[in-house]
Amino acid sequence: MLAFNFLTQDRKPQPGTGITMMLDKGLGPSTLDDLLKISGKYINLAKLGWGTSAIHNRAIIVEKINLYKSYGVKPYPGGTLLEVAYVQDKMDQYLLEAKQLGFEAIEISDGTIEILPEDRAEIIGKVKDCGFKTITEVGKKDPKKDQKIGISRKVEMVNEDIDAGADWVLLEAREGGKGIGIYDKNGNVKEDEVQFFMDNTKPEMIIWEAPQKNQQVYFILNMGPNVNLGNIAPEEITSLETMRRGLRGDTLGKVNL
Amino acid sequence: MLAFNFLTQDRKPQPGTGITMMLDKGLGPSTLDDLLKISGKYINLAKLGWGTSAIHNRAIIVEKINLYKSYGVKPYPGGTLLEVAYVQDKMDQYLLEAKQLGFEAIEISDGTIEILPEDRAEIIGKVKDCGFKTITEVGKKDPKKDQKIGISRKVEMVNEDIDAGADWVLLEAREGGKGIGIYDKNGNVKEDEVQFFMDNTKPEMIIWEAPQKNQQVYFILNMGPNVNLGNIAPEEITSLETMRRGLRGDTLGKVNL
Amino acid sequence: MLAFNFLTQDRKPQPGTGITMMLDKGLGPSTLDDLLKISGKYINLAKLGWGTSAIHNRAIIVEKINLYKSYGVKPYPGGTLLEVAYVQDKMDQYLLEAKQLGFEAIEISDGTIEILPEDRAEIIGKVKDCGFKTITEVGKKDPKKDQKIGISRKVEMVNEDIDAGADWVLLEAREGGKGIGIYDKNGNVKEDEVQFFMDNTKPEMIIWEAPQKNQQVYFILNMGPNVNLGNIAPEEITSLETMRRGLRGDTLGKVNL
Repeated sequence: MLAFNFLTQDRKPQPGTGITMMLDKGLGPSTLDDLLKISGKYINLAKLGWGTSAIHNRAIIVEKINLYKSYGVKPYPGGTLLEVAYVQDKMDQYLLEAKQLGFEAIEISDGTIEILPEDRAEIIGKVKDCGFKTITEVGKKDPKKDQKIGISRKVEMVNEDIDAGADWVLLEAREGGKGIGIYDKNGNVKEDEVQFFMDNTKPEMIIWEAPQKNQQVYFILNMGPNVNLGNIAPEEITSLETMRRGLRGDTLGKVNL
Repeated sequence: MLAFNFLTQDRKPQPGTGITMMLDKGLGPSTLDDLLKISGKYINLAKLGWGTSAIHNRAIIVEKINLYKSYGVKPYPGGTLLEVAYVQDKMDQYLLEAKQLGFEAIEISDGTIEILPEDRAEIIGKVKDCGFKTITEVGKKDPKKDQKIGISRKVEMVNEDIDAGADWVLLEAREGGKGIGIYDKNGNVKEDEVQFFMDNTKPEMIIWEAPQKNQQVYFILNMGPNVNLGNIAPEEITSLETMRRGLRGDTLGKVNL
Repeated sequence: MLAFNFLTQDRKPQPGTGITMMLDKGLGPSTLDDLLKISGKYINLAKLGWGTSAIHNRAIIVEKINLYKSYGVKPYPGGTLLEVAYVQDKMDQYLLEAKQLGFEAIEISDGTIEILPEDRAEIIGKVKDCGFKTITEVGKKDPKKDQKIGISRKVEMVNEDIDAGADWVLLEAREGGKGIGIYDKNGNVKEDEVQFFMDNTKPEMIIWEAPQKNQQVYFILNMGPNVNLGNIAPEEITSLETMRRGLRGDTLGKVNL
């Protein structure tokens, strides 16, 4: 039972929505266990960011994966690691290792390298065939390259990924959320771009990377408490859930549960 | 015994001063235990920020409260949670639950909602009657609303709260400390406003929310090592205490213990 | 064995290079143990920042030192604490206590106070005679004082310290890395100043304090994966190692291991 339970109500998201994706950039297993104990139920997906899982011992990665799964959280390695495997032409080996380690989802991105559209669709299909949840990411990590794609092409990519069978599509904002994708250099939301995605995709299948608090507030106030949000820092998981429920000043009295 | 104990001296604050209030935004119990083990003696009050305690299990909140108390730290739920109870007309239930959970202090704020002055004084009285330490907060969380109050009215509110029996009065600066209250948008101290509080209130009863390091340095250099400071992040507790004692470059040779 | 070990290769730094120095500003022992368990092998030196070790109990400092050493990490107290000892004329007592606590290195700095050049050389010699690894630091903590030194004098100091027997020389950037030393007020690298150090010192003996991610990326891309970097936050240890190995977007395909 929650403390002060007479003051609050549960969120009731539709299946596949209301997602909180946490960015784990190398938490130790005890630190993770402690986080999950207090707030694990507020995390749905956990990204072991970029190639971090490839510099840690298998035994520790397996331990962390099992911890996540025991709290109903689906862990997955960052898209950059798949890009490394793609460049080295080791996709099958990558997926096999991910499966053996116990990961439950795979991210397909081209944040740094180029992946041909036909290869992208093929990888999505292969990931699905292996029984993973399939998360794609749209956007480049280099802000200059990211701007060159253009919003129309990004919308197309979101829809192509959904057609290819992606369970969710991430919009790239990196760990920092400034000067990239839908955020200006101060981290403010480019509202017209967000609206363009809303109007031309299935927004309930997008996970908006929103590492900054003002970004989280924006999406909750504009899309409701069950908007899908990603790249949430571990120490912000509790804060985000309180904002979704109107228990922080920024959203108090402004959300409908 | 402290390491290098021949190099340092203790602080000797007057009762009720020299306060460090930490902002806990959802620490897990083991993480908290570890923090308290190394630096618990440098924390006096711990705010479980805004409504965070209302999304955690009672058993974990009780465990955390007991941990705090075993180190002589007084934990209390954030003012926003009291505001939620006020809006729902559940003040008595709120105070009863806080008591049953083991909290030792209560914060009375109107950072987001409106509370009538007579209600505010009545709540302060009720909180005191329940045997809690009573901490009020002056200031709005929305910077625009906060500016509208005006410094004169804020000074009046501080004094009204003291007259009504508050043990300490917090000056609102939120978690970030930028563009709010006594801080400009870059987090620099508005020195004339601080001076106005100094001249027209009992400053030893104010806890200055000062989440940024430059703010902490300012208060220590201008008001001495035993100034009351609040909204200190857990990972800054050790740093703050070293600055109070002249053990960091910013204050070395500049404080009188 | 590492997870995904078929995707990565080890770094092979020359002895004394490839150093990662972490800034520990008061980690609790369990938190430290957990960090070391997952990423301890990627830390070479750990600075217990400024005077932090002097406000913690001897038993906890000894426990932390032993933890560090069990993972091959050399811990040492921050230079500010040596400055406190120098001002109090307690250098011998300081070194004896550091030895008894189990520290393996000592930092000699004049970030806040003035130390005569002849005293500095003498202290370096004394530290070496005690069997400590000897780390000096060049630069002032106050940005205004730091600017007054001038780049030519800093280069001289680096070389004097090396001549006096320093194992490594730190370039001061504090915890924040903005508006100080080789970084402008936004934390961008002053490339011409870095080049001046490169051209006129033994750069492989410098540890560049580089707390910000963009600074770490700069040094890795310009000086290779085994550049010595310092003041790395505990939560960034994993990230830094992935960037050194080309496993994050910023350096993927751009480093030669």
